[in-house]
Amino acid sequence: MTKKQLVSEIKKKASFLCIGLDVDLDKIPKHLLSLPDPIFEFNKQIIDATHHLAVAYKPNTAFYETYGIKGWEALEKTINYINKEYPELFTIADAKRGDIGNTSSRYAKTFFEYMNFDALTVAPYMGQDSVEPFLEFNDKFTILLALTSNKGGLDFQGLQTGDTKLYQEVLKKSLTWRHSEQLMYVVGATKPDFFKEIRAIVPHHFLLVPGVGAQGGDLHAVCKQGLNASIGLLVNSSRGIIYAGNESDFAEKAKEKAQELQREMQEILQQQHLI
Amino acid sequence: MTKKQLVSEIKKKASFLCIGLDVDLDKIPKHLLSLPDPIFEFNKQIIDATHHLAVAYKPNTAFYETYGIKGWEALEKTINYINKEYPELFTIADAKRGDIGNTSSRYAKTFFEYMNFDALTVAPYMGQDSVEPFLEFNDKFTILLALTSNKGGLDFQGLQTGDTKLYQEVLKKSLTWRHSEQLMYVVGATKPDFFKEIRAIVPHHFLLVPGVGAQGGDLHAVCKQGLNASIGLLVNSSRGIIYAGNESDFAEKAKEKAQELQREMQEILQQQHLI
Repeated sequence: MTKKQLVSEIKKKASFLCIGLDVDLDKIPKHLLSLPDPIFEFNKQIIDATHHLAVAYKPNTAFYETYGIKGWEALEKTINYINKEYPELFTIADAKRGDIGNTSSRYAKTFFEYMNFDALTVAPYMGQDSVEPFLEFNDKFTILLALTSNKGGLDFQGLQTGDTKLYQEVLKKSLTWRHSEQLMYVVGATKPDFFKEIRAIVPHHFLLVPGVGAQGGDLHAVCKQGLNASIGLLVNSSRGIIYAGNESDFAEKAKEKAQELQREMQEILQQQHLI
Repeated sequence: MTKKQLVSEIKKKASFLCIGLDVDLDKIPKHLLSLPDPIFEFNKQIIDATHHLAVAYKPNTAFYETYGIKGWEALEKTINYINKEYPELFTIADAKRGDIGNTSSRYAKTFFEYMNFDALTVAPYMGQDSVEPFLEFNDKFTILLALTSNKGGLDFQGLQTGDTKLYQEVLKKSLTWRHSEQLMYVVGATKPDFFKEIRAIVPHHFLLVPGVGAQGGDLHAVCKQGLNASIGLLVNSSRGIIYAGNESDFAEKAKEKAQELQREMQEILQQQHLI
């Protein structure tokens, strides 16, 4: 998918919502557990109920790997289902990969070619040659960890290095890499005060913003400094949406939560004259 | 496995060799490709031929994920084979994972419980609460990326932050984390000049050292500053060993390469009076 297509889809739906598919067999409705593939069945019903309200879906690979081969089957079925039924959706493998060049190339092939995700989250610690192999794929996006939403996010990312902080260095250096136009950045919603200075460095790139919902981030605070002329935000909610209910009407409950967020987003986009 | 058991095994074999199982179907001998599981068959023959010369095996998960479910099956068969046939071997999943707390817990369960690896490589960028979930497992080791062997390794790791460099901060801070005795560190063999200052910060921990062989690192230079009283090094070679041959005698060729390295290691250990 191109950035233009993504922006067009956001405007059409008046939503920049990303739904995190972090499926936990201990949390999904009990009646699904007797089915042959409860993880996929859960995802399918969530996606069917919310696809008109969200523009992106983000399975976190940890939640699939933990079930071994069955988990990977469920992940493959999920991405294939989205690509077949809802090709207009932007798909993100939240895998936080990154390794030496020839190994990163492998990861890139896995997620961009074999599984056909639109985007992949990548950790920057190993530097330029660990990230560039991901950037070589046309119309695929590498979402680099910049400032993460967790408590320890600032342990290293917040360290002062020369005139700037480490996460700012990550943003700045990454802009000099080959095909840097294919970059997006992870910036946690729990750190809204940082969005202004982040936008000063990367005014045009998309930011993937986790941490709204269960982690306590505030949508309005994020949007105030985070939105740009082509919207430039994907705001993720995982647990707050997918576990809104855990009875047979769980998908309906998820839809209600997604609708709430979509309406808030629509209001914000209208206020800012972006739609 | 405990650290004591690992050290005892190193002394017994006079070897601190780790063999990287980065299996690429384009590089393995052609005659294996017609078998039902060529990746596992390749690994099995390599392990059978070299298990008396190495103390650790390190599959890089990227090379398995890239073949989808078949790749994960091969990875599971490989770790199960080692754990059953050669339980004295130290097993490392080179996965470079790391995420927010509840997600890191998932990864830890996957690799330490479900697959029963002894150790896992983890990226530090997300800080304390992204790493501590891995440290909670008894007799399991978290191998934190400190200074990596690739060209871009210093892009961020080498940044000056206060009096120290980022990789030194990673070492220092990590020592304050809960169960830090379960940490080991990745330090690239291509950066031998750094071992002295690294040993000043982490004198007692094991270092996993990739980059000998195909990446050009020098074993003697690494050992000079890297060895400690309980040896404290695992030196990895992947491509240099497993692709030493690609005919029907590939396992024999791998054994010869492993033997060369083991002999060098034995000599070094004897010179330093460590065995």
